[in-house]
This record gives sequence, C-alpha cells and structure tokens, in this order.
Amino acid sequence: MPTIRVELFEGRTAEQKRAFAKAVTEATVQTLGGSADSVDILFFDVKPQDWATGGMLWSDPRPAKS
Amino acid sequence: MPTIRVELFEGRTAEQKRAFAKAVTEATVQTLGGSADSVDILFFDVKPQDWATGGMLWSDPRPAKS
Amino acid sequence: MPTIRVELFEGRTAEQKRAFAKAVTEATVQTLGGSADSVDILFFDVKPQDWATGGMLWSDPRPAKS
Amino acid sequence: MPTIRVELFEGRTAEQKRAFAKAVTEATVQTLGGSADSVDILFFDVKPQDWATGGMLWSDPRPAKS
Amino acid sequence: MPTIRVELFEGRTAEQKRAFAKAVTEATVQTLGGSADSVDILFFDVKPQDWATGGMLWSDPRPAKS
Amino acid sequence: MPTIRVELFEGRTAEQKRAFAKAVTEATVQTLGGSADSVDILFFDVKPQDWATGGMLWSDPRPAKS
Repeated sequence: MPTIRVELFEGRTAEQKRAFAKAVTEATVQTLGGSADSVDILFFDVKPQDWATGGMLWSDPRPAKS
Repeated sequence: MPTIRVELFEGRTAEQKRAFAKAVTEATVQTLGGSADSVDILFFDVKPQDWATGGMLWSDPRPAKS
Repeated sequence: MPTIRVELFEGRTAEQKRAFAKAVTEATVQTLGGSADSVDILFFDVKPQDWATGGMLWSDPRPAKS
Repeated sequence: MPTIRVELFEGRTAEQKRAFAKAVTEATVQTLGGSADSVDILFFDVKPQDWATGGMLWSDPRPAKS
Repeated sequence: MPTIRVELFEGRTAEQKRAFAKAVTEATVQTLGGSADSVDILFFDVKPQDWATGGMLWSDPRPAKS
Repeated sequence: MPTIRVELFEGRTAEQKRAFAKAVTEATVQTLGGSADSVDILFFDVKPQDWATGGMLWSDPRPAKS
C-alpha cells in the first residue's frame, strides 16, 4: 500500500521512469513487505525554473564554487 | 479549512471536475463540518506514463489476468 | 485511480472520517467514473499551531474583524 | 533541510518566482536557522480550472458578494 | 535532485526504512542518473484509520471477498 | 491563494514557526502579489529517522567528510 511520489527535473525518458518503477517496486517489496500490486509510484516533472536551492532557481546560472 | 488534493489520470473534463468539486465540498461540509468557503480542492492531472502500479507504467500494456 | 489527500485540523473523529470516505468515494465514482476500489483517500491531521493563514498561526488569538 | 512546496495560480513570471525564492530562503534561514543551501523550494503552477474553493472552480464566474 | 515521498502504513521499523532508503537511492542513481547525495527520501507513517480504499477505512473490518 | 507546505525536521518552536509564517507571508505578498489572507502555510514536522539523504537516515551517524 505504499504510495511513492517522485519529484524530479523534467527530461527523463519513459524508459528511465519504467526502469525506476520496476526497480523501486522490487526494492519496496523486499524491504517493506507487501505485494508489488499495492505499490503506486507517481512522477512529477519539475522545470528548472520551478525549483530553487539556496535561494536560486536552477534555471539561473550558479556561481562557480571557489 | 480542509485542503483536498486529487491526483487523477488526465482526460477528465472541466464539467467532471466542476461536478466533483461541488459534490465533494458538500460531502465535506456534511461530514466534517465547517463552511463550504473553507474547502479548497486542487486537481493534479497525471499522465499514464507518470503513474506506475505493480512496477508497471499505466502507459504500458498490462498482461491479461488469467 | 484517483488518490485524494485531505489536510484538516486534528480533532475529527473516526466516525467523521468514515462518513467522509464513504461519501467522497461515492461522489468520485459518480462524477469522475471508475470503480470505488480504485479510490484512495488519505487524511493528514494538522495541529492549529502548524497551519497559518494571513501570516498567523491558527493557535494564536486572531484579532476581531471590525 | 526544509523543503517548501508552493502551489499557486499559473501566470507568475520567472522574475517573480526568483524574487520569492530569494526572499523566502532568507526568511527561512533567519527564522528556522540552518544554511541557505539546505532550503529547497518547488513551485507548482495550478490552472484556475484545477482549483476550487467553496465548491466552485476558479475558472467559473463567481457570484458577486452582496 | 529527486525528492521521494513515501506514504505507508505505520509500523515499519527503522531497520526497514534504512534498507528501503539505501535500496531506493541506489535504484534512483542507476535508473535516473545523478548522485546519491542529491536523493532525498521522506517517510510519512499513516494510521489505518487515516487511509481509506473503496470508501472504507483500513481500520474497519473489510468484508470477505467471495 | 498560494498554499505553502513546509517539511522540516521536528524541534522548531511555535515561536519560530510564528516568525516564519509572518515573514514568508509578507514575502509572498511582496513578490507574488495578492492579499495576505489568501496565503496558507502548513508545517509538517519530520523525524530524523523519517528523512534520508544519500541513502542514509538522518538519525544514523554520518561518516565524516575527508
């Protein structure tokens, strides 16, 4: 019955999400128990201009770390 | 003051969402109390390739149940 | 397949949540289609000191509206 | 380490989100402590037809308050 | 940078969550790319009386399937 | 109308959340527009054993960076 939400930068392919869903569902069953059919996974693509870390949008150029 | 989030497969019409919002707001007031104005409902359309159950994306063909 | 999350002030009884779940599931099937078994509803109790509106926690006294 | 999710009506510019991210990250560090780098902010644009208050979609005309 | 939220019935041990976090982080890096350090996972324990499927709380007895 | 959710490690005081709510609501109005009354903020306290980064729970000792 776990429901898993994944927020990630847009741009991953359906093939990548398919592989993620398969691997994470297996990992869920192995570590938390329950059946694979009870595992729901939802992907939410986020644009770089909609995600900020350290007060800066990821669509903006980040200063080089010195 | 309840805030209600609904994740559903994309494709429902505005008319369906309008009917849902009206019916669910009424059900909320009747069962939880409070005023209708305090009920917020947000819809999040999800593509079939962004939802997996049992480790398979809903955009992929599912094996027939035997 | 809709998944419905409800954030509400703590204090509602199991009976109220039971009635809400029943009524909202029926409303979902009637307005969005699909089967009742595909409707998941999750409740998240929120304390008044963990919810702010207008910049004020609900656990704090609110000024009277004049 | 706070993660902050913001659901807002679509239509705000990148400049507005940039200013929000900067101001809210600073406010977070000042009031909750921690470093700016540990603050993540995600924006979720919501269409008016996907948000209902009082049982009515925001894309629908609202009756005038008398 | 993926952020992963897991809603699950309460009762899993720290050891189970530890194993889940390790396995899912590895699966994320392998299928989506990026570094392990950029993967955040949050667990939300849900009580059976706060989760309903098919209009029934999981804390209530479910009719036997015939 | 923005709704803001904040996930943070448990342990912040009501005074800190009060200050956060006030400052973030002001920042929201200044940068996104709208009225303060339309800004909702919800706090979700997360235990260190329910948050993992880099595949490790925050309740576990982290290896020193060399």
